[in-house]
Amino acid sequence: MKAEIIAVGSELLTPDRVDTNSLFLTAQLNRLGIEVTRKTVVGDDLGPLRAAFDDAVKRVELVIASGGLGPTEDDRTRDAVADLFGRKLARDPAVMSKIEARFRQLGRTMSEVNARQALVPEGATVLDNDRGTAPGLWMESGGRIVILLPGPPHELKAMYAAQAEPRLARIATGVRLVARELRVAGMGESDVDQRIAPIYTRHEDVQTTILTAPGEIQIHLRAWSADTPAAERQLQDIQESIVLALGEAVFTTKGESMEDVVARELTLHHATIATAESCTGGLLAERLTRISGSSAYFLGGVVCYSNALKSAWVDVPAEIIESRGAVSAEVAIALADGIRRRTGATLGLGITGIAGPNGGTPEKPVGTVHVAIADASGSKERMVRYPGERDRIRWQASQTALDLVRRYYLYAAQPKSVG
Amino acid sequence: MKAEIIAVGSELLTPDRVDTNSLFLTAQLNRLGIEVTRKTVVGDDLGPLRAAFDDAVKRVELVIASGGLGPTEDDRTRDAVADLFGRKLARDPAVMSKIEARFRQLGRTMSEVNARQALVPEGATVLDNDRGTAPGLWMESGGRIVILLPGPPHELKAMYAAQAEPRLARIATGVRLVARELRVAGMGESDVDQRIAPIYTRHEDVQTTILTAPGEIQIHLRAWSADTPAAERQLQDIQESIVLALGEAVFTTKGESMEDVVARELTLHHATIATAESCTGGLLAERLTRISGSSAYFLGGVVCYSNALKSAWVDVPAEIIESRGAVSAEVAIALADGIRRRTGATLGLGITGIAGPNGGTPEKPVGTVHVAIADASGSKERMVRYPGERDRIRWQASQTALDLVRRYYLYAAQPKSVG
Repeated sequence: MKAEIIAVGSELLTPDRVDTNSLFLTAQLNRLGIEVTRKTVVGDDLGPLRAAFDDAVKRVELVIASGGLGPTEDDRTRDAVADLFGRKLARDPAVMSKIEARFRQLGRTMSEVNARQALVPEGATVLDNDRGTAPGLWMESGGRIVILLPGPPHELKAMYAAQAEPRLARIATGVRLVARELRVAGMGESDVDQRIAPIYTRHEDVQTTILTAPGEIQIHLRAWSADTPAAERQLQDIQESIVLALGEAVFTTKGESMEDVVARELTLHHATIATAESCTGGLLAERLTRISGSSAYFLGGVVCYSNALKSAWVDVPAEIIESRGAVSAEVAIALADGIRRRTGATLGLGITGIAGPNGGTPEKPVGTVHVAIADASGSKERMVRYPGERDRIRWQASQTALDLVRRYYLYAAQPKSVG
Repeated sequence: MKAEIIAVGSELLTPDRVDTNSLFLTAQLNRLGIEVTRKTVVGDDLGPLRAAFDDAVKRVELVIASGGLGPTEDDRTRDAVADLFGRKLARDPAVMSKIEARFRQLGRTMSEVNARQALVPEGATVLDNDRGTAPGLWMESGGRIVILLPGPPHELKAMYAAQAEPRLARIATGVRLVARELRVAGMGESDVDQRIAPIYTRHEDVQTTILTAPGEIQIHLRAWSADTPAAERQLQDIQESIVLALGEAVFTTKGESMEDVVARELTLHHATIATAESCTGGLLAERLTRISGSSAYFLGGVVCYSNALKSAWVDVPAEIIESRGAVSAEVAIALADGIRRRTGATLGLGITGIAGPNGGTPEKPVGTVHVAIADASGSKERMVRYPGERDRIRWQASQTALDLVRRYYLYAAQPKSVG
């Protein structure tokens, strides 16, 4: 089954906002074996809106639209679709009383304009909205299904999951999408492609996409199949070949973030961690603490921009800063080891570098970063030169630091107890 | 003049990637007075691709497409457009030699497949690509203009600016878009709307959009006009009325981020700042240091998750933590004042709270956050309860802390010297 997604709203045709509902809907539809073949963004004007639906139902069996169901004059989606299918709009008493109840519950009086939201095309099924006042609609005509969902993402997601998906699941065929996502750190895109092209080009029925994201390469494997176990086995084969080809650069085969992987390793090894950062300005600590429950392993961190604080907070010897420079392997190691000693953590991480755009020199250009990891028995340091802008350099530096933690545990067969 | 944008690429129809080129293109086209009336995303298949162009040129005078110009079999954009306009594709010797030169320069040998990129439809103008091998194309037929740009954003942006925009500027009419963006902190969307609706509804020719972003409300004002000075005056009037209605909650009338505003105030007052965070885990320091040149005012920060580190690093008295709890006004103030004393900064910021999803109690539910600011003469504290998920709570807490800095300087008429 093929589907198109229409995002409705003039604000989505400005430079300020991008439609993201379609990413959620695509993921959900793909799981049911429904392929998305086109996405369209249109404004709130009735004519172009009606035309967009008209075009879409001519091409595919399923059209899902988001937005334009609100109470104002600008919200024209239900009018456009009613008109397209030649259905009259009538006020639905059940919907009306639900909207009134919602207003009562919020302690507000309902204005007349909100009654517009109770207009339902003849023969349409109403999809209740638990999180807002605009109901959704499910319409069928001439073998086509049109589903209208509200624009706010939390309303759309809840309504889709509770009411659209169960209905679609009954209709969808046995074809399913089977997908894997591998992520790779410490290698460039062309390097990855060169090593794995001989693998994925042998499998023409599997769609392989290689995407670059800051600090990592993502490899997406996707196969549409009526025989899900066979497709799973095929993807498993490809995955194993890719892992063989890329080795320990692969940090997940389940699409996890680097902070997820590091959180799992630290928890598994009953380890604790602390950070001392300069150029990343807190980003490393922030990424480690994004994970809920991170207080189990993250003790604390310092952001020491000034040289004086590097010495005062984590005991970086002033003479090292003077002789080697603040951006040096020695300072990175001193930061990592100093914060470990100060906090009593199993592991310490240190980052010092030049995020730019200013502060570069011929010997240490913008993008030069030293990253170090320390445990009770020693330390490991890595110097890297990242291209790009300030935010990209900071992100990549934090990624490299997290990757040092992951690699630290690669060959640790048995969980260690906390020191 | 009206335009449509087509983003080409099967990867843009997966849940993993969203088209962002169209945001850049929309901003650029709007500046020339060209309105974007529809955006379409299509895959790499020739049939649907050709149909998408066919539909678009029937509706509008200008169609800009991104992607599908590369060297592989999957790159079909130029074939689709050549076919649509009935033009033959021929290898362009000038393009060919440029591609060869680029490969030589990179020290790589050109594979035969790259010659595909030198195929140019008859009568088309080639747009050189300074940053990659795929050239762009400019085609005109029957009063329609079709511009094909490469997919990688840095290639697309450079090519548009250098070669598409000057040509479009000559064609575009005198109508221009005039726009303003106000941002508001510390108020909800419905509150903002209620106060400013009487203002913006008086100006039907100005498009007003109110968007919610984490920690702030954005008010976009947009007017299309051939008389730019008059439109600027009108927007200025509306802006002044809105600022009157919302007061000091408006933190920018130029679409700046909160960290930009805070950076400007700190610089203007020759002040320095330091942070002590718990639940935000480094996000506050990270936001302060996103700004290039932040080392001029940001001295350093600590992330103290554990109570022991709150005492060890910023001298929060253990008895306060015990009597009032780690999440309390007293601890927030002690964090702010402690980090200020430890670093010698003009201002100290402290945050303590429960970001969730665990750790909440009936008295202090998830989302409870205390934020404090301290200077040499005293402190100010604010308790807030944020709804939503962990990342949203953390973002809003950091926003409130930055907003405390902004409000601190609201009534400071004269820049003070550093204490």
